[in-house]
Amino acid sequence: MPKRLALLGSTGSIGTQTLDVISRFPEEFKVEALTAGNNIRLLVQQAQKFLPDCVVIGNTLHYNQLKQALRDIPVKVYAGDEAIEQVVRGSNIDIVVASMVGYSGLRPTISAIKAGKKIALANKETLVVAGEIIKKIIKESGSKIIPVDSEHSAIFQCLAGESGNPVEKITLTASGGPFLNFTEEMLRRVKPHEALKHPNWDMGNKVTIDSASLMNKGLEVIEAKWLFDIPPEQIKVIIHPQSIIHSLVHFADGSVKAQLGVPDMRVPILYALSYPDRLSSDLPRLDLSKCPTLNFIEPDPSRFRNLALAYNALKQGGNMPCIMNAANEIAVIAFLAGKIGFLQMSDVVEFTMEKTEYLASPGLGFLETTNSNARKIAQNFINELLKKS
Amino acid sequence: MPKRLALLGSTGSIGTQTLDVISRFPEEFKVEALTAGNNIRLLVQQAQKFLPDCVVIGNTLHYNQLKQALRDIPVKVYAGDEAIEQVVRGSNIDIVVASMVGYSGLRPTISAIKAGKKIALANKETLVVAGEIIKKIIKESGSKIIPVDSEHSAIFQCLAGESGNPVEKITLTASGGPFLNFTEEMLRRVKPHEALKHPNWDMGNKVTIDSASLMNKGLEVIEAKWLFDIPPEQIKVIIHPQSIIHSLVHFADGSVKAQLGVPDMRVPILYALSYPDRLSSDLPRLDLSKCPTLNFIEPDPSRFRNLALAYNALKQGGNMPCIMNAANEIAVIAFLAGKIGFLQMSDVVEFTMEKTEYLASPGLGFLETTNSNARKIAQNFINELLKKS
Repeated sequence: MPKRLALLGSTGSIGTQTLDVISRFPEEFKVEALTAGNNIRLLVQQAQKFLPDCVVIGNTLHYNQLKQALRDIPVKVYAGDEAIEQVVRGSNIDIVVASMVGYSGLRPTISAIKAGKKIALANKETLVVAGEIIKKIIKESGSKIIPVDSEHSAIFQCLAGESGNPVEKITLTASGGPFLNFTEEMLRRVKPHEALKHPNWDMGNKVTIDSASLMNKGLEVIEAKWLFDIPPEQIKVIIHPQSIIHSLVHFADGSVKAQLGVPDMRVPILYALSYPDRLSSDLPRLDLSKCPTLNFIEPDPSRFRNLALAYNALKQGGNMPCIMNAANEIAVIAFLAGKIGFLQMSDVVEFTMEKTEYLASPGLGFLETTNSNARKIAQNFINELLKKS
Repeated sequence: MPKRLALLGSTGSIGTQTLDVISRFPEEFKVEALTAGNNIRLLVQQAQKFLPDCVVIGNTLHYNQLKQALRDIPVKVYAGDEAIEQVVRGSNIDIVVASMVGYSGLRPTISAIKAGKKIALANKETLVVAGEIIKKIIKESGSKIIPVDSEHSAIFQCLAGESGNPVEKITLTASGGPFLNFTEEMLRRVKPHEALKHPNWDMGNKVTIDSASLMNKGLEVIEAKWLFDIPPEQIKVIIHPQSIIHSLVHFADGSVKAQLGVPDMRVPILYALSYPDRLSSDLPRLDLSKCPTLNFIEPDPSRFRNLALAYNALKQGGNMPCIMNAANEIAVIAFLAGKIGFLQMSDVVEFTMEKTEYLASPGLGFLETTNSNARKIAQNFINELLKKS
């Protein structure tokens, strides 16, 4: 019996790579549901190739066009966020691949967790925004999260067979992005197209900018806290420009385990889908003789402030990570639109974290409010910046 | 209840480091038996400190002196190889640490395996010489081998929680020893005192020379075959001069796991004793920010012939690894005595492998014969070399 999958965000970077993986294992995996936000053209192609039970387009304006395009194949067509939340609860779904980007991934992922589904989690914001709530729901529903992010997948793989053994710390590796050796002055003048060129990984625009600004690593630190139940002071970040060692677990006996591989998201995606088994694949192999040098460098907090902002958000807890994430989403949009500079993204985040109402134990409803308030505050701050310039 | 240990070769490098580990965990481990070959002075000190149930000195000539030295403490004193073999079978022993060096470790280790004891195996020669036989005995007795060698411990740790998952290959890392960048001409003129200076690891003389000549890695390749049931063509060696990554497992899904740490044998020793648990220790920690660079280099077979000789011995199987090991033990003694040059050690091994009678499925008795015949042939070859020079 193949595992039956719902793929949220199927037209994004992780979504398309997940379908690439699935297409290699037709006996093992069956796509039951595909969802996308707006990219009808690709969603139609995917539906034609994988013949799922249903497809959902998030933006309801596209419903008729999608329905029309798929009239010749036996697939149910739905639209809207409600439909996505319903589809992931379906009895025909074993694993939900949560690969929507940003805050919008939160609700459908929670819906799947409540239904006790196994979650292959690529959406960082779910745990960043609502980690505490998610942990409670998992306890009640018996759901299980398998991380897809290469760093968290690495930690997860290193913890296999180590149940109950004391962990001293974990180290998340960071490529350092394209601006690792830039001075502050150079960073100030970075253009969007430069930030979109990642040296190692092939990712979507939002994640690529976050990677260049180290906010991506900040989000991963917060995510790691919830995934592995480990306090912030035991989560370290080290710059590793080659992206070969994906992360490390330091056990309390002095032994360290790491997971390595070529920078290819399909390897952790496959692991999340096949876990706890591994499947023989023809994905690209790591050849150490072709990696003559691996480097490790402490991150520089003065040039990359986002990492410190993320640790602060995590230590404050409550709705602060939600505030940080919302502000960052707005800041990245403004940077990509050429409205603010690369370093000003951190200014936006810092200002919004100071000005948005803090609550130590928010429910989901208050997080919704926080998310929209923080976005407004961030946007107003950006507008003020634009007036001044 | 502490785990009760018999420590074979307690005065050697692994033996003393094992006692260092044990002294840090008095609640967890209790030394029941100590054995040594000749080093009475240290054996007496160890017995006084750890108060075992018994001590055994291999060389029977030392019995009276040992008995006399320990007359004031309540410890049984025995001498001779037979006594060692009996002691490891005792009902008061849970784990036998097999850390005798060389061929002489074989018989007591087999005795412990036959008695179904858990074996913390540091003696390479046990599996190199008699791997096939050992595997059969383990199946019958229910004994389990936990490797102590840092490389095999690394592989063993990476395989935790991966039962049944397909392994594509394993990579053993090698420091490359002190002569990594020596030309053939320079290698020819190496002196014993130079070969005894290992850049990373603190080991006994025999292992240090083997490490410089890469024969140590050759022995480890053969050992790995038996420990992990993996064919020679799936066992790779890569030079990693910093000795931080201790070895790697390449899974068939493209994911690689590695175990890392500072070069300190006490970490894998502790793991072998505490397995499957890990204990919190204050052993030295790996700090990646202090390891800015890790390098990987293909070994050069033309300058380090021992590695190819070991693969050949493994592929031929039968008594060939026993022949190789015996010849190498003689060659190392001759080199340390200044009788032959560094590169001539490989000549001795190669000649002996060609000239000693080969048997595809030898029993233990024939291996004894092989061992003594190969030593004679190696010694004669050395004598001929000396005549010529």
